[in-house]
Amino acid sequence: MGSFIVLVSFTLMILMAISYEPYSGMGVTASDVPTSCYHYCNQKLESRHQCYKHCDESAHKDPGYKLYGYPYSANTRRVLTVLYEKDLSFDPITVDLRAGEQKKPSFLSINPFGLVPVFEDKDLKLVESRAISQYIATVRRSRGTQLVNHKSYKKIGTETMWMYIESFEFDPPATILTQQLAINPLVGLKPDYKVVNETEPKLEKVLDIYEERLKNSSFLASNNFTMADLFHLPNIQYLMGTPAKRLFESRPSVNRWVAAITARPAWKKACDVKAWYGKKKNGY
Amino acid sequence: MGSFIVLVSFTLMILMAISYEPYSGMGVTASDVPTSCYHYCNQKLESRHQCYKHCDESAHKDPGYKLYGYPYSANTRRVLTVLYEKDLSFDPITVDLRAGEQKKPSFLSINPFGLVPVFEDKDLKLVESRAISQYIATVRRSRGTQLVNHKSYKKIGTETMWMYIESFEFDPPATILTQQLAINPLVGLKPDYKVVNETEPKLEKVLDIYEERLKNSSFLASNNFTMADLFHLPNIQYLMGTPAKRLFESRPSVNRWVAAITARPAWKKACDVKAWYGKKKNGY
Repeated sequence: MGSFIVLVSFTLMILMAISYEPYSGMGVTASDVPTSCYHYCNQKLESRHQCYKHCDESAHKDPGYKLYGYPYSANTRRVLTVLYEKDLSFDPITVDLRAGEQKKPSFLSINPFGLVPVFEDKDLKLVESRAISQYIATVRRSRGTQLVNHKSYKKIGTETMWMYIESFEFDPPATILTQQLAINPLVGLKPDYKVVNETEPKLEKVLDIYEERLKNSSFLASNNFTMADLFHLPNIQYLMGTPAKRLFESRPSVNRWVAAITARPAWKKACDVKAWYGKKKNGY
Repeated sequence: MGSFIVLVSFTLMILMAISYEPYSGMGVTASDVPTSCYHYCNQKLESRHQCYKHCDESAHKDPGYKLYGYPYSANTRRVLTVLYEKDLSFDPITVDLRAGEQKKPSFLSINPFGLVPVFEDKDLKLVESRAISQYIATVRRSRGTQLVNHKSYKKIGTETMWMYIESFEFDPPATILTQQLAINPLVGLKPDYKVVNETEPKLEKVLDIYEERLKNSSFLASNNFTMADLFHLPNIQYLMGTPAKRLFESRPSVNRWVAAITARPAWKKACDVKAWYGKKKNGY
């Protein structure tokens, strides 16, 4: 009988040693996940991984995400791509930029900056497409495409660096060229070629650095597609429809990279305006 | 004897259940921490928290960080503030921007963008001041001021949002005004008042939104000082020395916030040019 108890005790000991990792230890507090899920994890003594997966998958089956945006907007498409890469349902709410709805008081009460997209996850409201993208990729890390690394400090550092290179080196000239060469013609304005001629060399300088990087790396931050690549998509898509596409096509590694990232099904879907307007609430 | 073994077994079981959390489970792999530290953690079966602290504190006692920068540079000061908030030693390497050293081939081989700061943590080289700042705050999360939240998804989302609001709403007009009103006079150029008059209303619009936020929150992302506030410091410091300071002073909550963040000792030290030049290697 004593031996039996010892055996049972040791077995329990081994099992607990393997599996006991309180959910709070993974860096998420009780206030961050549904109470039922938090209690379930602690009571059942699941592994942290199992618990995380359980909370993430079951508690968020219908996340009830809301996305205020406009399907032609570059910044809206950035967030759409993340949602599609993660295969997440959401409720699209159209803010008609052509009608200037983003500057009306009813929308300014939602985002005082008067910009789309705006993302709502229950009582959390977020603006800025890159912040929304990172939030979704962090909260839903175990689902769909892994867009940001959470394990290796080196990879986190490198990815963050390339994300900020997009924000501060690529985006400023790319946005000016997108406005002049893609948006102006759409609204009946001519491009200001003085501005274009001043801006193109700035983008070329950035693309020269990208070319060197992409000779030795499939994507910017690593050999895998990450958020750093995704952030570039909306401006690149617009510019590839203008004479500025030669700046990308004349650089072989950049050209290969552009082809790879624009071919992603999530990006194609983000550009499909019918997919936005055809959506039923929480379904697509 | 049987009872004694049962007692010992149960005691061990409880102890292991409380303390066994393999280091790899906290999201850091063996390749990210020194091998000796990783093995120590797994052999000693410390708690994840203890192990994390051990690796972070002991393995990085002399981190050997290198910072290429210029003590008058706004972007260099952003990273300096993070290093001082975390009380971290580093080796400063001066890149004289007045002498144009950042555009010389020897520096372009370090950062092809020709910009400071550049940060080196052993074989990891990072550019972009905000990326460097986030890297340090993430790797050294357990040390000094807690600048970024790693536990609450809501807080991570809100902080990230305010960081990107700084990057995309505050920084563009603030940088233009800093250049025109602070840098131009330093190098013997007059401000272009057409540019100033076009840009000030853009910054005012942003500060109006900040004023509303700061009426109900001590700092931008929460009631605590975070990276989102820190990111604003370099531009604000320059602008407070120009006529543009009235844009901040005329808004009571913004004014209170500016006073609070510019009073931080880490920021004062980051602005102390003597502290940069007086540094011995790895000491200050």
